[in-house]
Amino acid sequence: MREIYRQLIHICTIVGARPQFIKASAISRVINEKYPGKIRESILHTGQHYDFSMSELFFKELGIPQPVKHGECGGGTQAEQTSAMLLFCEKMLLELKPDLVLVYGDTNSTMAAALVASKLHIPIAHIEAGLRSYDRQMPEEVNRLLTDHLSSLLYVPVQSGLDCLEKEGLRPGHAGKPNPLKPQVVLCGDVMLDSALHFASVSGGVLSEYGLQENKYLLCTIHRPSNADEPKRLFKIFDELKALASKLDKKPVLPLHPRTLKVLGEEGLDYMQKQGLQVIPAQGYLSMLQLEKNAFMILTDSGGVQKEAFFFQKPCVILRDTSEWTEILSSGWAVLAGDAELRVCEKALHLLQHMPEEHPAIFGDGRAAESIVAHIFQSFQ
Amino acid sequence: MREIYRQLIHICTIVGARPQFIKASAISRVINEKYPGKIRESILHTGQHYDFSMSELFFKELGIPQPVKHGECGGGTQAEQTSAMLLFCEKMLLELKPDLVLVYGDTNSTMAAALVASKLHIPIAHIEAGLRSYDRQMPEEVNRLLTDHLSSLLYVPVQSGLDCLEKEGLRPGHAGKPNPLKPQVVLCGDVMLDSALHFASVSGGVLSEYGLQENKYLLCTIHRPSNADEPKRLFKIFDELKALASKLDKKPVLPLHPRTLKVLGEEGLDYMQKQGLQVIPAQGYLSMLQLEKNAFMILTDSGGVQKEAFFFQKPCVILRDTSEWTEILSSGWAVLAGDAELRVCEKALHLLQHMPEEHPAIFGDGRAAESIVAHIFQSFQ
Repeated sequence: MREIYRQLIHICTIVGARPQFIKASAISRVINEKYPGKIRESILHTGQHYDFSMSELFFKELGIPQPVKHGECGGGTQAEQTSAMLLFCEKMLLELKPDLVLVYGDTNSTMAAALVASKLHIPIAHIEAGLRSYDRQMPEEVNRLLTDHLSSLLYVPVQSGLDCLEKEGLRPGHAGKPNPLKPQVVLCGDVMLDSALHFASVSGGVLSEYGLQENKYLLCTIHRPSNADEPKRLFKIFDELKALASKLDKKPVLPLHPRTLKVLGEEGLDYMQKQGLQVIPAQGYLSMLQLEKNAFMILTDSGGVQKEAFFFQKPCVILRDTSEWTEILSSGWAVLAGDAELRVCEKALHLLQHMPEEHPAIFGDGRAAESIVAHIFQSFQ
Repeated sequence: MREIYRQLIHICTIVGARPQFIKASAISRVINEKYPGKIRESILHTGQHYDFSMSELFFKELGIPQPVKHGECGGGTQAEQTSAMLLFCEKMLLELKPDLVLVYGDTNSTMAAALVASKLHIPIAHIEAGLRSYDRQMPEEVNRLLTDHLSSLLYVPVQSGLDCLEKEGLRPGHAGKPNPLKPQVVLCGDVMLDSALHFASVSGGVLSEYGLQENKYLLCTIHRPSNADEPKRLFKIFDELKALASKLDKKPVLPLHPRTLKVLGEEGLDYMQKQGLQVIPAQGYLSMLQLEKNAFMILTDSGGVQKEAFFFQKPCVILRDTSEWTEILSSGWAVLAGDAELRVCEKALHLLQHMPEEHPAIFGDGRAAESIVAHIFQSFQ
């Protein structure tokens, strides 16, 4: 018994924002299925996001382990939120004394957890390391930069992340026990791909609920203020969408956020109906995966949906004039159509006529979580 | 009038620990003397250190400008202190809206100020950038690392700092307006040298107070727990000091901290007296400078005193087995004598017999503050 206990690695996962729970679930699944008695995981939820969709139902629905402790660090200014998180994380880490702190992405929760762990001399593993927008106006950019420089184990989802880290002196090559002075930089794929593949296989009734058929509809999401708050742009997108739908003989479907519905008003909804656009309510993660997986084509201004379109091998029209996922663009699976002219229909048709034969494994093979947990386990041996 | 106002650069200096005020005074002096109507400085004191020696008297004695605002962020755990500082700095920076935040060194105040400024998109200048101990157990190491990566203007005191920054991808070469994506790395010398030279020229009566004569005494300071809390080591140091003093025909003088006096007890003090060692109370910054400047030789386990010994071109015996100032060691002006054997006398004599002819400008020319302020001013033009 003693021997077993000594081998047990205690990981404390600290999350706070909705997507982080989805990412963390991929890791938790691997730990629970493949490392019983070898790795123990405690989950802390800072409370950065807290709403109904993050309640017990969310955890149950996604089969995500419940946090051992829930902070109340949402809201407030950057400093207020970060302060509350520092206090919460320090208190909990002093109590739990884990062997490793595991953080995801680039939220204030990520950075606060990393800062506290580094001061307590607890090594840090950072999943989604190496991403850079090179826009320091984004608080997320500051968070990811600091977290990377504090981490001992840096799990990089895409090749370009390795290049970004190398410019900052963080290079692959080290091995052994986690040590922030010898950071281990590992290209391992994207846990969001793992999660998308896993949860998309969970059966869901969303297609039948809205009378949709596999490959017979165009899925369109609009949420960025630069589109959603501009009625003129919205109407132009609707016109383009109608034109595209009739050329392709597909049904245009738009899950719309209540805020966008408000911008549109009665008149806008009437117009959409006249154009033959099917409006449905904003969807949760599981239903969105179903809608994406079964769409003929996806049009979106969301970074997450762009990636999921690529995961499910769907052609994607990006309703913006830039994208953080340049790898998807250069693979030929997506096209930008968000400039002032908004020639969405033309660009979508061009994309369909020039679809690449290859679908490169930009985000890995869907087993990022397995390789991350194996690497963590190995590094403690 | 309008034109003048538009040219005025508003710098907010954020300090919290005693040495930071001394460093900041060198910069404030240059701003006040050479940039009236061009640069305006507001000083925030987080309150990280607060005691009598930091009271009004401290500011008056050193001629340091009073802080515009005083926080109460001392004490507590790392996270508690940092939290309080984040809140204080954010509130004040939102109110002051400076063009630049100026921070010093590696305290929690430094890091908290930099973190808040970066989230508020205020560029950061870091004085004493690039120093690394490569010991992540020290909270200071985490603070300096993060502050450097958030800064737009990095003022590096010594050449080795440039090398450390280069390994992290922070290289000289950029110019123009302060921009954290194009950090400007500048080797400029050490503002502590500026301050030491300036304040040492202020007349002080400490020598006559203790009956000391220029170049006729050995100055010895002991404050690190590894020496000061070990009576056996302390007595060995005293014996060595006595031997050295008689060989050189100099008076051994020890300013002792109350804590060390307590460790020694009555018996210890008696012993010191019998050995002919002159014990004086712990001294403030100004008196210490006088004592250092007029000593024949300095023996110390303090990093600061090591540097000041070098500033005043005094041979220095370091009562430790490592030093963060490897440049001083390799210049031949100091020697390590803090291993288990503590052969202080022998090493001191050897050092004196082999004093170098050159005194390299490792820490600059005593005009670091001038070049820093000129660079800041230039970068805003």
